[in-house]
Amino acid sequence: MSKTVLEEKIREVKDFPKEGISFKDITPILADPVLSSFVIKSFNDKLKGKKIDAIVGVESRGFLFGMMLANELNIPFIPVRKAGKLPSDVISEEYDLEYGKAVVEIHTDSIQKGWNIAIHDDLLATGGTANAAANLVKRLGGNISAFLFVVELSFLNGRKNIKSESNEIISLIKY
Amino acid sequence: MSKTVLEEKIREVKDFPKEGISFKDITPILADPVLSSFVIKSFNDKLKGKKIDAIVGVESRGFLFGMMLANELNIPFIPVRKAGKLPSDVISEEYDLEYGKAVVEIHTDSIQKGWNIAIHDDLLATGGTANAAANLVKRLGGNISAFLFVVELSFLNGRKNIKSESNEIISLIKY
Repeated sequence: MSKTVLEEKIREVKDFPKEGISFKDITPILADPVLSSFVIKSFNDKLKGKKIDAIVGVESRGFLFGMMLANELNIPFIPVRKAGKLPSDVISEEYDLEYGKAVVEIHTDSIQKGWNIAIHDDLLATGGTANAAANLVKRLGGNISAFLFVVELSFLNGRKNIKSESNEIISLIKY
Repeated sequence: MSKTVLEEKIREVKDFPKEGISFKDITPILADPVLSSFVIKSFNDKLKGKKIDAIVGVESRGFLFGMMLANELNIPFIPVRKAGKLPSDVISEEYDLEYGKAVVEIHTDSIQKGWNIAIHDDLLATGGTANAAANLVKRLGGNISAFLFVVELSFLNGRKNIKSESNEIISLIKY
């Protein structure tokens, strides 16, 4: 299958962050405003027909396209951040990393009950971070309508881990 | 002096991240797409007449408006990240924090010699991070045309630390 214009821009960096891993670097897309706009347009097209009330973007790379997309859709952008970064009242979710654990947080006043939320991050790997972000949203009374990723590492089965009846999982580039 | 519409949206969080500090929280601006667009328009207006070749945004909060602005100006967005996050070849700058040191990095192939760069972060405090980002750009042969901040804490004198003949320092809200 021939590569899409987006996929061609992904730079694969061997042995990063450690040996045996081929890292998918999106910085060449960030450096290309036409392609960056195309990412937003693609997400927008795939969300057509859904009523989305806010975009939740996961620190840090989920801030890049998440904020742009929220603005394009004329809806709020809500950051999910690493522990200790958000200044006001928060709730937290702990999740497993390959080695150890990580914690993400969200402001308790950021989501209104019943809001339909699209969660965005640049990459879907095992789904651990996305699941933690989704749990934060659900604990605040939001519904997860969609997950939006630029890149999906299909061989890690993250899609299985985050799929439910109520959500759709959208990724623009699949490996 | 009456508060501007932007300033009214800043949430001041007392004693964060530690006692005696009044943290300026921009998340209410992120949650308001009209105001977020206004931030981009304001930066854009203030850059009128300058030829800017790329926006450099500092992780993490500098990704939010930095990416949007680059897209609006139809120019590349280049991330400056914390140590160990950028996957390809990087150069690093170490700078002092109140306690200890921090390191930021940039991809060596991200900037072309002679490019005019606007560096963006959400907040200008002492200027340590902005200076480190500027040094990275200069080491790659870029010129610093402007610094763009949403919030400036004037009483910390960051402006003095980063000012030179060739750059302009733009902030939308001053404390």
